Amino acid sequence: METYDLIVIGGGPGGYLGAERAGHAGLKTMVIEKRALGGVCLNEGCIPSKALLNSAKIFDHAAHGEKYGVTTTGATIDQKAVIARKNKVVKTLVGGVGMQMKKNHVTVTYGEAYINGRTADGFEIKVGDQVFVAKQLLLATGSMPVVPPIPGVKEGVAAGFVMTNREILDLEEIPSELVIIGGGVIGLEMASYFNSVGSHVTVIEMMNKIAGPTDAEISKILMKNYEKKGVDFKLGCKVTGVGTADVTYECDGKSFTVKADKVLLSIGRRAVTAGYGLENLNVYCERGAVVTDEFMKTNVPGVYACGDINGKSMLAHTAYREAEVAVNNILGKRDRMRYNAIPGVIYTNPEVATVGETEETAKAAGMDVKVVSMPMSFSGRYLAENEGGDGICKLIVDQKYNRIVGCHMIGNYSSEIIYGAAMMIETEMRIDDIKEIVFPHPSVSEILREAIFEI
Amino acid sequence: METYDLIVIGGGPGGYLGAERAGHAGLKTMVIEKRALGGVCLNEGCIPSKALLNSAKIFDHAAHGEKYGVTTTGATIDQKAVIARKNKVVKTLVGGVGMQMKKNHVTVTYGEAYINGRTADGFEIKVGDQVFVAKQLLLATGSMPVVPPIPGVKEGVAAGFVMTNREILDLEEIPSELVIIGGGVIGLEMASYFNSVGSHVTVIEMMNKIAGPTDAEISKILMKNYEKKGVDFKLGCKVTGVGTADVTYECDGKSFTVKADKVLLSIGRRAVTAGYGLENLNVYCERGAVVTDEFMKTNVPGVYACGDINGKSMLAHTAYREAEVAVNNILGKRDRMRYNAIPGVIYTNPEVATVGETEETAKAAGMDVKVVSMPMSFSGRYLAENEGGDGICKLIVDQKYNRIVGCHMIGNYSSEIIYGAAMMIETEMRIDDIKEIVFPHPSVSEILREAIFEI
Repeated sequence: METYDLIVIGGGPGGYLGAERAGHAGLKTMVIEKRALGGVCLNEGCIPSKALLNSAKIFDHAAHGEKYGVTTTGATIDQKAVIARKNKVVKTLVGGVGMQMKKNHVTVTYGEAYINGRTADGFEIKVGDQVFVAKQLLLATGSMPVVPPIPGVKEGVAAGFVMTNREILDLEEIPSELVIIGGGVIGLEMASYFNSVGSHVTVIEMMNKIAGPTDAEISKILMKNYEKKGVDFKLGCKVTGVGTADVTYECDGKSFTVKADKVLLSIGRRAVTAGYGLENLNVYCERGAVVTDEFMKTNVPGVYACGDINGKSMLAHTAYREAEVAVNNILGKRDRMRYNAIPGVIYTNPEVATVGETEETAKAAGMDVKVVSMPMSFSGRYLAENEGGDGICKLIVDQKYNRIVGCHMIGNYSSEIIYGAAMMIETEMRIDDIKEIVFPHPSVSEILREAIFEI
Repeated sequence: METYDLIVIGGGPGGYLGAERAGHAGLKTMVIEKRALGGVCLNEGCIPSKALLNSAKIFDHAAHGEKYGVTTTGATIDQKAVIARKNKVVKTLVGGVGMQMKKNHVTVTYGEAYINGRTADGFEIKVGDQVFVAKQLLLATGSMPVVPPIPGVKEGVAAGFVMTNREILDLEEIPSELVIIGGGVIGLEMASYFNSVGSHVTVIEMMNKIAGPTDAEISKILMKNYEKKGVDFKLGCKVTGVGTADVTYECDGKSFTVKADKVLLSIGRRAVTAGYGLENLNVYCERGAVVTDEFMKTNVPGVYACGDINGKSMLAHTAYREAEVAVNNILGKRDRMRYNAIPGVIYTNPEVATVGETEETAKAAGMDVKVVSMPMSFSGRYLAENEGGDGICKLIVDQKYNRIVGCHMIGNYSSEIIYGAAMMIETEMRIDDIKEIVFPHPSVSEILREAIFEI
């Protein structure tokens, strides 16, 4: 039985980066992956969806460029070609992760891991016929889509009529009628894509707003943009049944039915904690997720966890950082996970990017907040590139410490700007110091500077 | 004679922002502008060029979307419509600056300012028939294009055959053959635009590289990209004459002639220091520019200067910050101008964005540097959105202090990412602290994080 300093279960963002950092630091490291390196994010999540959305953006430009002086006849998008290109991008990146494993001397084992239990030597992990021993363990098994017990859903999934993120990203035909159950990030990004390429999209959402915990005003602006493009939103509605060519839902006690060629199920994801022997170590779980502390330790000494498995933030970049914190603690370097400056992006058009407290959460936390809100059109570049754009940039300032605690943007390029706001929050930068930073002109990023001068 | 606490001469970025800040702080402020608020940047520089380049990007998408699965027939760009939209954007923004002046109680006077001299009351400024007195003065007269004494240039300008940035941004017809004299930022952005919309472009540059002081490797990548698109570069060549339908230049002692329907002159800009009575105050100039110290003071007490007039950086955002430093010092708040973290962007496709030292300048300054260079394709989003992209991200690290002193990028979104690198340099952030910042995934900004982990 070969012994490793660290065995990582799961080769998604948390798992592969944890393995990479551990290998780089000289630990004898193995990562066990049952499907493909990169996990959901790389194979059936963040990356494939961005490849699709990029094609949609280009198609939008081709089809609706008149306001910028560009006209075309017969703009078409070839869905099969889009999927083929997406597959190529994914393949390249999965290959890249493999290279990083090699470069950092990480052993990659494909197969389903099973934790036999703890022995005097460490943790015993079985993969097929092989058994390995790990002195320390990093759990990074990720999450899977929630499939609710709604009548017809199970049959719909089996028939290929109901899809999750996995199947929709391989869909080679554009459905005429697409019904999306759940108006969170995945639902909205897919609504955006299929709306652009010609589907009529209906989004059914139980809450009274889309985009989950996103700032309420920004959610509204986003919804308004997509309503203009023809997406139907059914807020405060509950799906009660899925047929073979329709979806039934209930609003205000009344029942409605909407036709569907395909259905996307995107109501949420849950941590993967079953089926691989977690119970053999008595790893403590709460509400279906592994409980971790700020050092990414579980209740079992030597067992760390990172990524969606702890259900805390369910974002690839959170997993990255958690993996680094875990490995640093394994290496004896003190490092602490914080969740107060983790950006979130919705890659719709316009994009939404947020970090830190919203007005609502800050007030709920008892902060004395000041909110500064600026129209994006105060940025010259935004105005030049976004005809009729209604984006905003909002800063949430803790007045007691005169510090930025949240930043919320809707408008293109936000996805690439938000990390700087995360930096301001994470490093607790003084507002007077931020004022001395020179932003390039003209850029949409300048809107942050404008907002800061309004604090 | 009405007396002002501060009179600002010139309503470009430095002038209007200085006036805005001064007015906001309660100073009785006037800004004098001879053409339009916003100056060159807003009216015939940064903003109009970005409006054009945005239309070109959309046209490129429409015309060359095949690799992303998008095809069109008959993509056309209507140059007159592009110019009309550009004018609309400029008008909106000029109006916005006017609103800011009003909001901050700044008097705007249109006309040519002339400094009569100093009296016991302050500085006497004449505009047409009116004379005003300023207790303090902020010079922000900007710069103008250098028109070299090459045979035929003067006649070409008079005939409309030779253009500067001002005229080319109003050009309503696309020239078949465009010759650009000078491969700096303006020359390259216009080469990019006219190449996209169908001109055959020739760039003649005296130096052996394009893009001025830009990192040499990045200049090369940028040039390679445009050579692929059909732009001809004549490096190390000197224009010796401009005809009525051609341009003659000399390379390695040999003379060549290239046909031209239009010529853009973009060899550089020089500070505007003549014609408005600067000499009446004996403001000290060197090499045609007003000399300023780190407080933006000239040699004359009470006379400050900001923006292109001091010839230091000739960028709108430098002018903004200089204006703020000037006004802070006028207000008695100590503030100091630094030039070590000013980003620069070239809005070509791919974009170039840089800040701080290059490898060359750092070594010349005697620093012990480490250079980290990462292909942009390490970013999943970059790979998804840039088929065949060859962008890079380079960090220059001062090994003595283990600090980032420069960041250089080529690849789209760089323009919106670079401010964060400026922030790292300006605040002298510790590399270990940067490692704890969470970047959103997938984003091109992540390439910075990747590079930082390679230091």
